[in-house]
Amino acid sequence: MSRQPSSTPPRPQGWLRVIGLGPGDPALLAPAARAALSEAEDIIGYRTYIQLAGPFRDDQRVHDSDNRVELERARHAFQLAAAGHRVVVVSSGDPGIFAMATAVMEALEQAKDPVWGAVDLQIIPGISAAQAAAARIGAPLGHDFCTLSLSDNLKPWSVIARRLQLAAEADLVIALYNPSSRARPHQFSEALALLRAHRAPETPVILGRSIGRIDEQVIVTTLAEVDPEQVDMRTVIIIGSSQTRTLEAAEGQRWVYTPRWYPEAG
Amino acid sequence: MSRQPSSTPPRPQGWLRVIGLGPGDPALLAPAARAALSEAEDIIGYRTYIQLAGPFRDDQRVHDSDNRVELERARHAFQLAAAGHRVVVVSSGDPGIFAMATAVMEALEQAKDPVWGAVDLQIIPGISAAQAAAARIGAPLGHDFCTLSLSDNLKPWSVIARRLQLAAEADLVIALYNPSSRARPHQFSEALALLRAHRAPETPVILGRSIGRIDEQVIVTTLAEVDPEQVDMRTVIIIGSSQTRTLEAAEGQRWVYTPRWYPEAG
Repeated sequence: MSRQPSSTPPRPQGWLRVIGLGPGDPALLAPAARAALSEAEDIIGYRTYIQLAGPFRDDQRVHDSDNRVELERARHAFQLAAAGHRVVVVSSGDPGIFAMATAVMEALEQAKDPVWGAVDLQIIPGISAAQAAAARIGAPLGHDFCTLSLSDNLKPWSVIARRLQLAAEADLVIALYNPSSRARPHQFSEALALLRAHRAPETPVILGRSIGRIDEQVIVTTLAEVDPEQVDMRTVIIIGSSQTRTLEAAEGQRWVYTPRWYPEAG
Repeated sequence: MSRQPSSTPPRPQGWLRVIGLGPGDPALLAPAARAALSEAEDIIGYRTYIQLAGPFRDDQRVHDSDNRVELERARHAFQLAAAGHRVVVVSSGDPGIFAMATAVMEALEQAKDPVWGAVDLQIIPGISAAQAAAARIGAPLGHDFCTLSLSDNLKPWSVIARRLQLAAEADLVIALYNPSSRARPHQFSEALALLRAHRAPETPVILGRSIGRIDEQVIVTTLAEVDPEQVDMRTVIIIGSSQTRTLEAAEGQRWVYTPRWYPEAG
């Protein structure tokens, strides 16, 4: 056989898998993600998630790092995979939803080394925090919804405020990620003020934290009563639409859901 | 010990688990869902999904049904669980996203038998179709997005059109479920006309179908070129925002992603 000329470098022996741990409960971790963790030579990720993903064997190399260095982590992963290693990048939730898959794509687009483009790259989806919180409490995401990040590290607050405003006008259920941070503690309060201008005080609000982990917390409250002090960077928030309902099926057992039907405009 | 008086009936022996199969690939099925399927005495669901969830043992009873009888299926599940059976209701994707968890909540709220409220009910989340399609092609859902159903079986088209309009104005990535049906084939064409008025012709559009199954299909096209003939009821569609990018990392290997950053308004 003759050698085919090609502008693409030959595929390296290594591979790169970007996985999501889901909410943290191993019973919700996809078998494909579990397999990738087991086959990996190098595991890269934010320290907290690496701890959830382990333990690892002595022959596996763990590269943990602080938060906020997503792009560096992604580049490191490509370097190792291009050099022939089997590499897993660990995210929480779904790597495709406010997590590492985007940083991996950014690193790939900016790659100086064309071998990175030839790396066998797979993204393995996972269950995101809002889905896990929703399942614990019923079906609040059962109808049209949106998923917004309140972090203004990488986008201006004006864009966030405008999106909240339009999502409120559209009467979408709203899942909020990254509601506050030490650097900017007021995002969630500002978002609440905006949403309270559009939705009834009794609109159900769900606060989910560490779902499926030992310190799991799910709070059902209302738009009038929710207190920003109840929320930190690890909380996912679900704000109901005008149709979202709370029902008490048995003593102490409250469920929240958004019906499949929507009334005709009056 | 004295018997505690209570208005809640005693919890029946049976239980009810509402599970999602994910996109259909067993490697993406949560172990908790797999365990529920294994422990169940009765399995209830739409015929197509039951086939994906099986095979089942001789001692398991399978209750399959046509599509569009969600509420009947949910009531049947509560009847069996209240009578002491271990029951699984099977959805595709995530049961909480345009799937069976909502119908189960509706059945519970309308329950005539108070024992239904005492049933041990758990909803086990799964990976939804848009997440699976996104992972195959990169990270198009990596930034703010919304998830809308185009079905007007249970909501008026005017609500759908208004939500599309506002989501387009908010520059959200848009995942569309239930894009067309035999009863109403024009939804997706109407949605496209609306979106084309807001977004550039070269906006990336992803069509995903049967991800992780043997007939998997992922098409990357643009808002200008997408053809409603490429879409059926089993297709999930992802429409990029103004920031969503396509990159060709190697020959024939195209990726689509939405960056984490968003520019200041010009």
